[in-house]
Parts: sequence; C-alpha cells; structure tokens
Amino acid sequence: MNIYAIGSGVTKFGELWGTSPRILAKKAFAEALDDAGIPKGRVEALFVGNMLSGILGGQEHLGALFAQELGLNAPAFKIEGACASGGLALHNAVNSVLSNQYQTVAVLGVEKMTDHKPEDVATALMGAGTDVERMSGATFPGLYAILARAHMAEYRTTEEELAGVSVKNHFHASLNPKAQFTLRVTVEQVMKSTLIADPLKLLDCSPISDGAAAVIITSRKPAKKSPKVVASAVATDTLGLAERESLTELAATKKAAKKAFTLAGVSPSDIDIAEVHDCFSIAETLALEDIGFYPKGRAAGAVARGEVTLGSKGLVVNTSGGLKACGHPVGATGVKQVAELIKQLTGKSGRRQVKGAKLGLAQNVGGSGATAVIHILKI
Amino acid sequence: MNIYAIGSGVTKFGELWGTSPRILAKKAFAEALDDAGIPKGRVEALFVGNMLSGILGGQEHLGALFAQELGLNAPAFKIEGACASGGLALHNAVNSVLSNQYQTVAVLGVEKMTDHKPEDVATALMGAGTDVERMSGATFPGLYAILARAHMAEYRTTEEELAGVSVKNHFHASLNPKAQFTLRVTVEQVMKSTLIADPLKLLDCSPISDGAAAVIITSRKPAKKSPKVVASAVATDTLGLAERESLTELAATKKAAKKAFTLAGVSPSDIDIAEVHDCFSIAETLALEDIGFYPKGRAAGAVARGEVTLGSKGLVVNTSGGLKACGHPVGATGVKQVAELIKQLTGKSGRRQVKGAKLGLAQNVGGSGATAVIHILKI
Repeated sequence: MNIYAIGSGVTKFGELWGTSPRILAKKAFAEALDDAGIPKGRVEALFVGNMLSGILGGQEHLGALFAQELGLNAPAFKIEGACASGGLALHNAVNSVLSNQYQTVAVLGVEKMTDHKPEDVATALMGAGTDVERMSGATFPGLYAILARAHMAEYRTTEEELAGVSVKNHFHASLNPKAQFTLRVTVEQVMKSTLIADPLKLLDCSPISDGAAAVIITSRKPAKKSPKVVASAVATDTLGLAERESLTELAATKKAAKKAFTLAGVSPSDIDIAEVHDCFSIAETLALEDIGFYPKGRAAGAVARGEVTLGSKGLVVNTSGGLKACGHPVGATGVKQVAELIKQLTGKSGRRQVKGAKLGLAQNVGGSGATAVIHILKI
Repeated sequence: MNIYAIGSGVTKFGELWGTSPRILAKKAFAEALDDAGIPKGRVEALFVGNMLSGILGGQEHLGALFAQELGLNAPAFKIEGACASGGLALHNAVNSVLSNQYQTVAVLGVEKMTDHKPEDVATALMGAGTDVERMSGATFPGLYAILARAHMAEYRTTEEELAGVSVKNHFHASLNPKAQFTLRVTVEQVMKSTLIADPLKLLDCSPISDGAAAVIITSRKPAKKSPKVVASAVATDTLGLAERESLTELAATKKAAKKAFTLAGVSPSDIDIAEVHDCFSIAETLALEDIGFYPKGRAAGAVARGEVTLGSKGLVVNTSGGLKACGHPVGATGVKQVAELIKQLTGKSGRRQVKGAKLGLAQNVGGSGATAVIHILKI
C-alpha cells in the first residue's frame, strides 16, 4: 500500500501572543486541507502531537478538543513523546492508514509556549527528562551542553564549527516567511552571544515558540502528484543521559535511521533534503552523523564549510530554518519538518526551494535523545 | 489478519502509597508477559495510556520512560484521551499490528493519583473538559449529575435504580482480589451516603485510584487458545456538555459501538460479558443503552433487578467491579477492562468467572463523553 502526503500547512512560528492554540490549529489545518484539495469530510481521524498543554495550561484531551474545533466528527488521539510528539503522531497516523482502519487522516502538531513565564516553560520541558535530572536542576541547554563537551573532547569539534549550524539555519530562515527569526547571523555574532550553558551560547539554542503544523496523508491515489511516505521508524533509548553508553551519539537516531533506510530501500547518499532536530547546534551535528550523512566527527566542519547550505550540490539540511531559526513549538516541530519536506518535494518552497529534490528525510528527537523518529518521503 | 490478545496483567488497584508508577508498570507488564508465555524480546513496541502524569507530577515522555523501565529497547508512545487513554492506546496498538509495522506489542495503562491532594486531582481531571467548564467551577461529578438529572427527567429513572449499578459492581468487586473496594453495599447504603453532586452520592461515584494494567497483542498465531480482537472503534463528540444535542445519551458511544458491531459482524445480543465505563452510576446506565444492550430508559431498572449481575443467564456487566468498585486509575482503566475480558474469555476469573463466555465488549469513555472507545474480543 502507498501512503501519499497530499497536503501540508504551517502557521507563522513565533511569539504569537494574540493567537490561541485553537486558532493556530485551524490555520494549519485549513492550509493543509486546501493544499490537499479534498473536502473536510474525507478526513477520517485526527492525530494530535502536543507536549505541554497539560502541564502549562491544564488542558488535556486534545484529540477530541481539536476534532471539534476543526469540525471533524472523527476519532482523535493525542500522542505525546516530548519534542518528538509530532513525529510520533505521524508514525501512528501512517500505521493507522496502513492498517486499513482509516484511508485519509490528518496529523496536527500544535504548541503554545510563549504565554507562560520562560522559567515555567523550562521546568515543564524537563518533563521530557528523568526525575534525577530535574532534581539536579538540569535544563535542556545544560544536557545538550554535556553532549557538546563530549563531542568536542572526542572529535576536536570547535565552537566555531557548531556556530556554523546556526549561521546556516538563520540564512535558510531568512528565506522562509513563516520562520520565527528571519535575521541572518554570523559566526562572530554566535560566538559573542550570551553564554547559556558552556559551550552553548544563545545563538546555539532554539527558541521558545508558538505554532502549529498539519499534514494530511491518504492511501487513496491522489489527483495530483504527491510525495509518498516510504518509511516511518521510531526507536528509543534511556530517558536520561546518565545511563547512556555514549555521549557522542544518539543511539535512538542511529537505530531509527537504519530501520527507515531499510524500509525505504535507499541509503543516506540518496537523500536530497533533510529536516533534522537542531534544538541546539550540537544536535544537528549529532543528527547528521548518526543518520549516516557524515562519519562521526565530520559533520560540524562540513556544515561550517557550507556543504549542506542551500545552493550546494548535494544534501541540503533544514531549509525551513530548523528548530533554531524557524522556531520550536515542541509538539508542532515533527509535523512542521514533514510539512517542509512536502512543500520542497512539490516545488512550493519559493526562495528556499531546492531544485529537483526527490527524496527527503525528517528526524525528530524527544528529550535528550530518548525518542527518535525518522520519516522518509519520496516523489 | 487476526489480532490475538495473548496476555493480560493487572495490579492491585487502590491507595498504593508505598508504590511508584514504575513499580506498578513493571508488575502489570510482568504478569501480562508471564500470561502470554513469550520472551520479552518479542515485544516490538509499547503503547502507554496515561492522563495525569504531566499535570500532577511534571513527568511526560512516558513511552520512552516505561520502555526503559520494562527493559524494552523498542519504539514507545504515550497516547492520551483523558479517561479513555487506555482504550485509545489499545486502538493505536491494534492498528500498528494490522499495519504490519509490528507483530507483537504491549499496551500499558498506568496512573498514580492518590499521592496528590484530592482537590488537585479533581482540578487536574478537569483537563478532560472545556475551559468554560473549568472556569465555571464544574467537576466531573457535577457534569455527570447533569446527565443523571436529564435522564431522570426524560425516562423517570430513579435514584434507587441508579444505586443498583453500585450495588452490583461492589458485589462483583467483592469477588475480585485486585479490586480497590471488596466490600458489598446495599441500595440503602448508597442512598444514605454523602451527597456529592445531586443526585449523585458518594457511592454512585468511582474513586481516585492508583493502578496499572497491561495487555499483549500479536498477529502471530499463539501457542495456546487466545481471544481475538475482532473490533476496535473510536468516536468523538463535543468536548463540553453545553454543545451537545442530547444530554440523555453519549453520541460517541453510539457511533463507536455501531462501528464495532459492524467490524465484528455481531450484535449486542451476542455479547456475553461487557466492561463498561461506570465512572458514575448514570454512566453505566447510559453505556448499556447507547451500546444497544437496552432501549433508552430501560437499563437502570434492568440493572437494579439484577439482570446483568453475575449468575444471570444473559449478559453480565462489569465483572471486575467496574470503575466504581474495582477502582479508576484513569489511564489504566481502558486497559484493565480489556484485561478483564481476556481473563474471563480464557477462564481465569476465579470466583467471578462467567461460565462459557465467548464474546466480550469493553467501552471506555473520555471526559463527559467526548471520546468513546469500543473493543470486542472473541474466543
């Protein structure tokens, strides 16, 4: 059975203080439905990716809530796996279509974070980690700083190379009108930005964001040429960093990627575009290595040299601007990544279009790597 | 493809102040694995049903957390839909097996509620409802009291008849060593218990509980005779009561039941045992009518006359003791219902065994009826 990704919608990401989660959801879904060119009544089920609505706002039961809000009288589910919630929602959606329970379903990722005090958001996000990490006072910049330090020690990765991730992703975001930050930055600006958790500086870190994204998939042959979801794979690792065998790789990413490449029958060198989970600059570095695009220790330098920047001949990474510059409304991120792939593969990416892109990969991570989700789309 | 339910495990339900969610999960899973008689390595994915861990404890990302805790190096997901979280987790698990992504998967429902102040739990549970309901100060006893009043007005249902639900379910629970309440109660005791939300009294209401339940399903032909999951269906309705067309039925239950009976190719009169969502006595009444076991207005009287009590010739309802007396750890409930069906259909229910039961139905509800899940199992 083929699974076609027939529609995608993404709201503006950013500090959207005048907009509610319901409005964000409606906007993303309406754009996806319009893109798919199907009547709403054809959507048979709704998969919602969200992490923080319960902790920050006391609102759970988002499946039924958004089904009502979108006017879908349909089965609905909330899937949660921290910052991988969106990717996990899509994985369950894909399986539900493959199962023949539903033919056409919508995946909605939505998160509203900026209405809350940043320290409350940081605390809530630690729900993705272990109780020991919370009690020790760790936050995610600190956990990823540990990964960065380990990588620097083992592979001589430099802070300037890591800064290259942010420079690239801000450049891409400057071409994406939906991005939270459309300003370009230089290596010097990254290096001089406020230290957050040594060696990570402000401009190494993705922001707190509001936003929503939606994708519609179907097993019905679409009227127009649409990408197929040729692989959907998930893997898990220990919840906390302390129990990992290695701090210079994310084992869950490696495992999910291996499975996805097998399912799709392709290899890393076949991929034209990738959206990877760059919550911090070190995270994109790890992703590019653990997926298999670069040998260990080689990704940061390659990114810094511009090898995966728009305009390069081979793989282009995070054309949306990534989590770093497009923004990171956590439950929406995994869905937005796939929405970006759909737009690229159907030639709708405007100034950031990668010409002739045929094969795209999305990597979505939960916590410090306890969950990893890989999707591969092909047109 | 056949989906076999090969193992089930349920912890003691109750106020388990000396036990953590991790221990509860391990106990339920170990019992299910032992029941299934398969090695742990065969479990390829984990579906966790939970509602309150984020709001009450700040811990999200329960898929990866419990996968690690159970020693499963496997894809893992948390599915949330208020008190229907367990049923929704099973629905997604069934679809994932039907999709051929996984052959054998585990479903784990777990909730720890009694460590928190009851008023905090009541507030957290309102995450299942609308913001308007929360702002108006409503709690679930109040919302279900509205449904009870409407039913009493339209069908002349009496408080004594509703009390019959509690009398029956406490009787069944007295035969279930895992139940939170094993004491039997009389109609007089229910009628004289503290008024909670008129007309619902303390003994019309399910308790706040701790507990976990696990079910293992597979598409592999099992070594021993095992029930098949012959239908898994979900429907949604408006999140809040105010927008409903009728207050004397749960439209989502009707819709999900209709779909499930079609999928299974059976009718309500074929069902031998049912576990229905009796969070309040009125809820069992609505369930028995909306599923189609009784015409509207007839269920409460039938229950009060003992028609669905253990020992009766036809359908027996809530042999576990139901949410009312077995207990209601919300995320665990939908999984426990199906675990009870598996134990009954395989003749492992001891003193509460329904002899010769071949066909069982579970109905799991989220909120005041915004989500309904129906599973039908056959041996």
